[in-house]
Amino acid sequence: MKSNQVQKVSDVPKFLDSFDTFLLDCDGVLWRGSTLLPHTKEVLQQLRSMGKRLLFVTNNSTKSREDYKKVFAKFGIEVSADEVISSSSAVAHYLKDEAHFTKTAYVVGEAGITRELDALGISWIGGVDHKENMTMQELEHIELDPRIGAVVVGLDTNINYRKVAYAQLHLRNRPETLFLATNADSTFPSAGHMLPGSGTMVAMVEACSGRKALVIGKPSKTLIDLVVHQYGLDKERTCMVGDRLNTDIQFGLNGGISTLLVLTGVTTEEELMSPDNPTHPHHYIPAFGDLLLASSSSHLLLRNTT
Amino acid sequence: MKSNQVQKVSDVPKFLDSFDTFLLDCDGVLWRGSTLLPHTKEVLQQLRSMGKRLLFVTNNSTKSREDYKKVFAKFGIEVSADEVISSSSAVAHYLKDEAHFTKTAYVVGEAGITRELDALGISWIGGVDHKENMTMQELEHIELDPRIGAVVVGLDTNINYRKVAYAQLHLRNRPETLFLATNADSTFPSAGHMLPGSGTMVAMVEACSGRKALVIGKPSKTLIDLVVHQYGLDKERTCMVGDRLNTDIQFGLNGGISTLLVLTGVTTEEELMSPDNPTHPHHYIPAFGDLLLASSSSHLLLRNTT
Repeated sequence: MKSNQVQKVSDVPKFLDSFDTFLLDCDGVLWRGSTLLPHTKEVLQQLRSMGKRLLFVTNNSTKSREDYKKVFAKFGIEVSADEVISSSSAVAHYLKDEAHFTKTAYVVGEAGITRELDALGISWIGGVDHKENMTMQELEHIELDPRIGAVVVGLDTNINYRKVAYAQLHLRNRPETLFLATNADSTFPSAGHMLPGSGTMVAMVEACSGRKALVIGKPSKTLIDLVVHQYGLDKERTCMVGDRLNTDIQFGLNGGISTLLVLTGVTTEEELMSPDNPTHPHHYIPAFGDLLLASSSSHLLLRNTT
Repeated sequence: MKSNQVQKVSDVPKFLDSFDTFLLDCDGVLWRGSTLLPHTKEVLQQLRSMGKRLLFVTNNSTKSREDYKKVFAKFGIEVSADEVISSSSAVAHYLKDEAHFTKTAYVVGEAGITRELDALGISWIGGVDHKENMTMQELEHIELDPRIGAVVVGLDTNINYRKVAYAQLHLRNRPETLFLATNADSTFPSAGHMLPGSGTMVAMVEACSGRKALVIGKPSKTLIDLVVHQYGLDKERTCMVGDRLNTDIQFGLNGGISTLLVLTGVTTEEELMSPDNPTHPHHYIPAFGDLLLASSSSHLLLRNTT
């Protein structure tokens, strides 16, 4: 598709009628940092009242789905945990449903991962329990743990040499050890500036182990296949909405579903239209809030004032 | 050069006569782990008594040259600190002599680096002083430090998120910030098993900063040029002796000097002779100890018993 074939959504009712399910990225679409974007709540209410299924897809692995529900609640948005698909919950589901994993996972990551493993009854070692580093004398003599059958890597702001050494030892010496990453984003936006993302930890473990991780989060085909299968989605009637071309939009394209880019986050209209841009969404719209229909708007305004 | 053109050293006196300077890798050549290899001391004494210049070249960045002198002393070998070229001393010399660096270096690494920077009067931040992690709230608000003009990365067994975040912030937001790595070895041998090497930390900082480090240690041409210049070596009369094809031998080849592979370390004779091996040393010999001349041997034995 040529860049000039990207269609700006002009007929919103017709666009909405084309889909039963919307997969929604959160930061950059619904909110930006700690600020809710205009009309987010109204559009979500409108879509729900139209009977659309909403699934929120995030690459953030540091929070469990229950934690993420609380993030929504802070913005005054009610969601159920099973409407949230985080890269950590996806890893846990991949291990259980796809890999039929019955051993123990070694975790380089935070509580968002280990809580999701707990939720599916998958045992784990490392993670928050290996927050304290070990001495070199201890690390030289750590032994292969026969229970460990997978290494799971995600963003870990308590990364230390011990966790990397454990991951490396098992990945290098036991080729059958599964190697999964929640996501490979190199950075993520914080209140102040960009900070090192999960891709940083993935690069670290890949470098010393000589192995390549299977990345589960956006834009992987593994995740979209998992979501389509798990929720029984009709691909023809599903649309991914996001602000990043290389994660959100590529994710939808990898899965063979429709894609809608919003311009309230990372991607600018200039980048979208650039002849150098290799990733072409099916549709774009300036903001998620622009999906608000005039009728819903007045209806909701009416409801909100009663 | 075809693999069958690699020459086994048969005439040792003639081989030794061809060179004035030997650059020597240590682990795998002189010793292996904590065990001195046979005749190491005698060959070193013999080379010294023949008037050869000896320079010991190591990629280990965790020790300063003074520290390394003590490692030799443990094996009963006397060397002077300026006979030792470590990847950390090389980085300090590169900053001072090549980059004419007058700002402050941010260090992701251990005391071996910061001591060498101190020795050349280069100011630094980070390293051992940033051993304690910071909270995410603190890290979101760290600010660009106008003093920082370079990031230096080496093996850091006290790696934490704070150091990576600092390095990333300066490399990403200030393109003029120099980015140097002591070495890029993905692992290193310990008493027990392989452990993650400096290349692990380099991959981590590269991933989040979107920058590529200039790697100073073996096999970089930067280092061999620096050594040749600093010690005023005659390339025609200099030979690099090592046990690793992809670091030691490639290092010599990159510098246009002769190379001698020994088979007491990482590389086996099978790997050397394999048609898949792309790295061909000029010469090989089973062990460094095989350079001992019969006359020296009896002479030294005589001396040793007096």
